[in-house]
Parts: sequence; C-alpha cells; structure tokens
Amino acid sequence: MSLAIERVTVRDLRFPTSRSLAGSDAMNPTPDYSATYVTLETAHGPAGHGMTFTIGRGNELCVAAVRALAPLVEGLALPDGLADMGALWRRLTRDSQLRWVGPDKGVVHLATAAVMNAAWDLKARLARLPVWRLLAAMSPAEIVALVDWTWLADALDPGEARERLEEKAPGRAARIALIEARGYPAYTTSAGWLGYSDERMEALLRAALAEGWSHFKMKVGRDPGDDLRRARLLREAIGPGRRLMMDANQVWGVGEAIAAMAPLAEVDPWWIEEPTHPDDVLGHAAIARAVAPVRVATGEHCANAVMFKQFLRAGAMGVCQLDGCRLAGPNEAVAVLLLADKAGVPVCPHAGGVGLCEIVQHLAIFDFVAVSASLEDRVLEYVEHLHEHFLDPVRMRGGRYLAPAAPGYSIAMHAGTLADYRFPDGAAWAAPPVRESGEDLDANGDWPV
Amino acid sequence: MSLAIERVTVRDLRFPTSRSLAGSDAMNPTPDYSATYVTLETAHGPAGHGMTFTIGRGNELCVAAVRALAPLVEGLALPDGLADMGALWRRLTRDSQLRWVGPDKGVVHLATAAVMNAAWDLKARLARLPVWRLLAAMSPAEIVALVDWTWLADALDPGEARERLEEKAPGRAARIALIEARGYPAYTTSAGWLGYSDERMEALLRAALAEGWSHFKMKVGRDPGDDLRRARLLREAIGPGRRLMMDANQVWGVGEAIAAMAPLAEVDPWWIEEPTHPDDVLGHAAIARAVAPVRVATGEHCANAVMFKQFLRAGAMGVCQLDGCRLAGPNEAVAVLLLADKAGVPVCPHAGGVGLCEIVQHLAIFDFVAVSASLEDRVLEYVEHLHEHFLDPVRMRGGRYLAPAAPGYSIAMHAGTLADYRFPDGAAWAAPPVRESGEDLDANGDWPV
Repeated sequence: MSLAIERVTVRDLRFPTSRSLAGSDAMNPTPDYSATYVTLETAHGPAGHGMTFTIGRGNELCVAAVRALAPLVEGLALPDGLADMGALWRRLTRDSQLRWVGPDKGVVHLATAAVMNAAWDLKARLARLPVWRLLAAMSPAEIVALVDWTWLADALDPGEARERLEEKAPGRAARIALIEARGYPAYTTSAGWLGYSDERMEALLRAALAEGWSHFKMKVGRDPGDDLRRARLLREAIGPGRRLMMDANQVWGVGEAIAAMAPLAEVDPWWIEEPTHPDDVLGHAAIARAVAPVRVATGEHCANAVMFKQFLRAGAMGVCQLDGCRLAGPNEAVAVLLLADKAGVPVCPHAGGVGLCEIVQHLAIFDFVAVSASLEDRVLEYVEHLHEHFLDPVRMRGGRYLAPAAPGYSIAMHAGTLADYRFPDGAAWAAPPVRESGEDLDANGDWPV
Repeated sequence: MSLAIERVTVRDLRFPTSRSLAGSDAMNPTPDYSATYVTLETAHGPAGHGMTFTIGRGNELCVAAVRALAPLVEGLALPDGLADMGALWRRLTRDSQLRWVGPDKGVVHLATAAVMNAAWDLKARLARLPVWRLLAAMSPAEIVALVDWTWLADALDPGEARERLEEKAPGRAARIALIEARGYPAYTTSAGWLGYSDERMEALLRAALAEGWSHFKMKVGRDPGDDLRRARLLREAIGPGRRLMMDANQVWGVGEAIAAMAPLAEVDPWWIEEPTHPDDVLGHAAIARAVAPVRVATGEHCANAVMFKQFLRAGAMGVCQLDGCRLAGPNEAVAVLLLADKAGVPVCPHAGGVGLCEIVQHLAIFDFVAVSASLEDRVLEYVEHLHEHFLDPVRMRGGRYLAPAAPGYSIAMHAGTLADYRFPDGAAWAAPPVRESGEDLDANGDWPV
C-alpha cells in the first residue's frame, strides 16, 4: 500500500513565559515562547513533527506561511519524496512568488524551517534513526548534495567540502562511541536573565555549580553599571577557572558595543554575543577587532547561509551560533557547519526558547561526528525551561547533553501540550495567570521580577 | 472635534500579470504583481493610503502582518500622533515579539512599509502637500530626527548628517523650480523582459526611442548565448550614445557573475543589477572589483538600512536602488539617501511592479532637492504597466517623471480597482483570463510568450 504525505497540519502554540520573565533580555523584555508546530500526516505510517520558534506575536504569521508552503509537500510519495532532501529544500525555497517576501529570511524562511524540520523528522522515523544518526550515516557525497551551493561556492567549493568530509569519515565511529559514552558539552543561561534579582541569580548559580556546569552566560546591555555589578557577582560566584559569556541581544551600535565592553573586560568574558544588529557583518568585524581577545559570538538571528558565509569570511564571528529554527532546517544548518569548519570557527548552536535544545543537539553532535571532529571551544546552549512538553526531551548529565536515541528530530510534543497551549483558545490562555513552579505572585498579584 | 486614526483597513490586491509575462525575469518567471493595500481611516478627515509590493503568493502574509501592526497605530490622535514620525517608526519596528520574526526584514518589514507609507500619505494630506514637498519643507534637524541612528551612526554621525543637509539647504528652492520645470530623469525596462520575443522587444525599443528615452535596461541570466544575442540587438537598436543596463535578478553565484559578465562587456553595459544573492555584501564587492568599470547596482531586495550601510561602505554598490516598499517607509529611505550621499553613490530607486513608480518618484525628487543635490548618474526606473489603477498616477514626458502635485504619496487607487483586483474574489480573479491591451490569445487560448 503506497504511502504519502497526505496533509500538512499547523498549530499556533504559545507558552506564557512573559508572566515569569524567564527569557527576559535587553531587546526582548517580555517574550512568550512560541512554536509554529507542523505535522506532516500520513495515512498509515508515522507522522513527521517540526517547528519553528518565535516569541509570541508574529507566530500566527509563520503559521500562515506554513499554509502557503503546504501545497509544495502535500501529496509527496514516501519514502521517494524524501529521498533527495536537497531537491526538497530547493523546491521549498525557490517558489518565486513566496521568495519575494523573504528572500531566504523572515517569516517565510522561519516557516520553511518548520516544514523542513518536520520532513527530516519523518525521514528519520521512517529510517528508525534519530536525525543526528541519519545524517551521520550519510556519505560525504550525500551530505554535500543536501546543500544549495548556488551562492556559497565562492567560499567553499562543493568538491572541497566533500574532500574535507572524506578526511574525517574514518573517525566517525569512534566519535559516535565517545558521544554515546560522555555526552556533548553544554553551557547554561538559566541564571543570567536580566529580569532576575541578584538573590535569585546567586541561588541559581549555586545550584548550577553543584550540578557540574563550567560555562555560564549572562545578559547585558540594559545599564552599564548594572551590567558590571552583575558580571562581578557572576565571576565571583563561578571563580576564575570557569568560563563567563555575555549576551547583549543586539541593543548596541558598533561604537557603543566597543565602549561598553571596555569596562567589562575585567571579568574576563570568553565571548560577547550579539553586540549589535544581526545583519551588520562589517560592524561585527569592527567590534571583533576592538574587543579581542574576547570573541564575538553571533548567529541566532543570522537569516541564512549567505549571511553566515560573510560573517565567517570577514572575521566577524569568532563563535558560530546557528539556530535550527531560523536556518531552513538541517540542509542549511549543514551548509553552515561546513562553512564554519572551513573557516576554523567553532559552532556553538543557539538554544533555549522552546524546542531549540531538542533540535540543535542533533546538529551539534553531527558536527562533531562528521564535520569538525572537534569538541574544542564547543559548548551547546542549555536552558532548563519547557522540556516537559516534549515526548523525547533532552537528557542532561553533569552539564552535558546525552545523545538522543529515539527515532526522529525530538520535536514531537505531548497531546496535552498541543491542546493546552494552542493560541488563543488553549487552557493556558483562556485561564488567568497560573502559578508556575517556584514562583509566587507578589502582593499586587503580579509575577515577581 | 478631535481627529484620530480610527481603524486600519487592509486589502489583498493582486493583478494577474503572469498571464502576459510582463515582469518576467530569470528569478521570477511568473509574477502576479500585488499590493498589500493599507488605509488608515479617520472619522471625518482624509484617509491615509499606503501599500507594500509583492509578486503574488505571500501577499496574504503581508496582509496578516499589517493586522498584527494595526494596534500600534489605531487610536493615534491627529495631527499629534504623526508629529514625530521618527518616534512612530521606532514604535512600529521595536515591538519585541514581532521583531523576532524579522528582525527588520521579510514579511514584517514589508508590512511596516505599508503602514508607514500610509501614515506619510495621511500626514501629507493633512498638510495638503505631496510627500516630496512635505519632506523638502523639513529642516535639516527634522530630517535627521526621522532616522533611527542606533545601528547607523558608525557610518554617518547624525551631527554630520545635519551639517551635510544644512550645506545643501540654500539651494533647495532653485532645485525645486528645476524639477517643476523639467521633471526627473528616468529609464525604461519595458522592452527588456525575458519573456518577450525579439520582434516584440524591437518594436518596443523603436517606440521608446521615439518617445525620447536614453537609458534602457534588459534582463539577463537565463542563458548566456541568448543574453549576448539580445544585448547586441538592444545595443544596435539604441546606438552607442545611449546607456544600456543589465539585470540578472540574483540568479548567479559570485564566480558565475564574474564569468557571465566578461562576454557581455562588448556591448558596454553601464551597470549589472543584482548579479548575485541580495544579502551577499562581500560577494557584490568582489564582483564590483572584477567587472569595473561596469557598475554593480543593487538594493531592491536589500532589507534595511543596516544592509545598505555595509553595501555602501564595502564598495559593493555602485548604484543604490532602494525600494520604497521593502524599506520601511520614507524614514528608512531617508536614512539610505543620507548614507548614499555620504558614500558618494548615486541613488536610482527601484520601481516598476505596481505602485513603485508612484512612490519612489517622491523619494528621488526629495533626494535631489535636499540630500544629494545632483542629477548626475541618477535615473529613476520606469515601467509602463498598471498606472491606470491610481488616482494620481505618474506623469511622464520625454523620458522624465513630472513632479507629483496632489497632496499625499500618490498611492491611493480607484474604488473599482480595490473591488475588481481583490484576491481571490475580485472580478479579475473570478473570471477567466481577459484580453489585455495589445495582446491576443493564441490558438490554444493562452497568452502569447
């Protein structure tokens, strides 16, 4: 009996995180972490689950964009329709009318990510493998064929990409065994949100140190004096031997970023993340020259592989923070992994939000197994919120991600979550604010800041 | 009696241009020129009309994004709510949740353009001035205050921008008089679409020469041999004294672009437009170095002023083709005009489509009057389609735009157009293909290619 993608279903899921200020930063004071959740339904096989990540308003636009893309995948025969994922990627990104409202960026590209993530989930379920293992089982030629080289070949010739992958291929099995045994290194942002009090930050840091974390990130950019005070507090709490990272979430201009980082150098930051506008390749390069040896990290708002190509070549990105929901799925993420490897820049994917940790663990592990073959200066972001909504959530041990074992891309959510967090009519939105774990309303009935 | 913006109305208008292949190019073979048409309604004053431009599918996403932005302008008191247009621009672009699905690019930014264009139309109607005159009546300080300098000040300090405007201020009146008398120079793309036969192209060229045009643009990038044959045909038709421009609409990689332009140099092109991906600043810079003295022109897909800043500083843009619907309204266009002036790069705005000619004539004339004060190497794109839908359409004479005289931004469309081209239920979409002027159905009932 023949199998096909019968129907694309898409859901607007939102989590009312603005009530607790988890995720607050200088640019995004009140995010409601959200998912444009895509299901590729089949008549009698597994379904494919994918998503993109947003922070609230605007999620409905990604939902609408998935509906616009749906005709491009509905009716695809299985497994043949998912045999050439490079061709599927071009099919989704080269519809000329839809491309106009990007191109390769913004709402349409975020929606393409959701659909491609679902397609990879489905392909991996059909193969009964987690996505990272599916990718790691591909030959160098098959990996190179996932990428649209049209606008990338000037930085990395596809032939050279294949040679680099072939060089690393003999060590894949040993690296898989290492990750299976020890997990992938991570860092935590849980203590460093701008909205948290010093007391809360200190308590969270003590807990994180006890759990074995060695890399800690804090938000900066709201007030210079406050930034320095909190940075000193953090450095004092973690001691000189652990790494401290900072994230400005784009609020500074180029000159402001350089000026703001001068006093913060005393706490020895490893990187400054998103110091300015995410499109400003040359601005990031200027900041990188000025703040060295502090590295400039960016990528979570880097729209596509063409932008990464430039950041990497211009010396504008000392740490590559690709995002598994802003790049249009594993195909484009693989392109960026290959470009970063060529440039000698470590990839530390952006995570947090909802679902991002689940997704990018596959990409980081694949990078280690098949592309960079290195863990040096690689740490995968980890934020502890909202994992309870996933059927196959991340598993952490001693500040490391354990390799996902279930087939698929780890995105599928519980049926109760799909019902309760549907916007605007799910129970989480219909009801008045409810108590969240560890939180108490203050005397005014507001959530504490 | 107090006046306010009572309600934002938005319409999905689409023109079935794919039936005639007007607008066909190597990247966009079958566009249906479309407008996300915004009306800011007031109880008893004039309404403000604005739009953004798309090419069909995806227009519904811009419509939805306008609905998401509407609460940010509904209820604004008039005229006070439009007194500080810089503040209004920041209000629309800094909603942190909506910003995430850009930022400053794609669907949300296109929708912001539509709303800001409508706000400027309304402000100009209240002042009983065309937008270009409203802008040209502002002091240097007022003009500088329109711009969000956060991410631009490293390229142009706002104080220096003001000084440059003050230097040009004494000549404004004389330049206004010149434009009123002679119009603004233009070029035509009407003959050069890829979908046209040689015979049709030659006939259109003869007509254009008879009308007095001196600059001609052709599409390239589908087939090298075909490009050269059509380029020779065009050069032969226009002679050596007129200018020939080429537009590749992004289809090439960086190396491909350089290789493709080598044989085309024989017809002495003035510029090559969009030779590669619109996000590739450094790629454009490499192409510009390789194809000089042919200039690289780009900008119609350049998402925001931060991108323009880099193109201009990197020597990646020899001609600046800002788009009045992709940049978020006159505020951001003014920012780009100031940056281009500082960089010494002529601005030749992108037009064509539907409504773009009507919009950018205001920006080009303002550039001449108050910013660049020059017409050297400046030509404004002109395409002859679809002007009949506008209440205050462009007026051309001898290959020049006559200055718009009616109050507003020239975007308002006829009531019949708003009804007939509404997608998907307007008469133009409900009925089978209808005969367009100068066209005949072929024996199969298809439109001729």
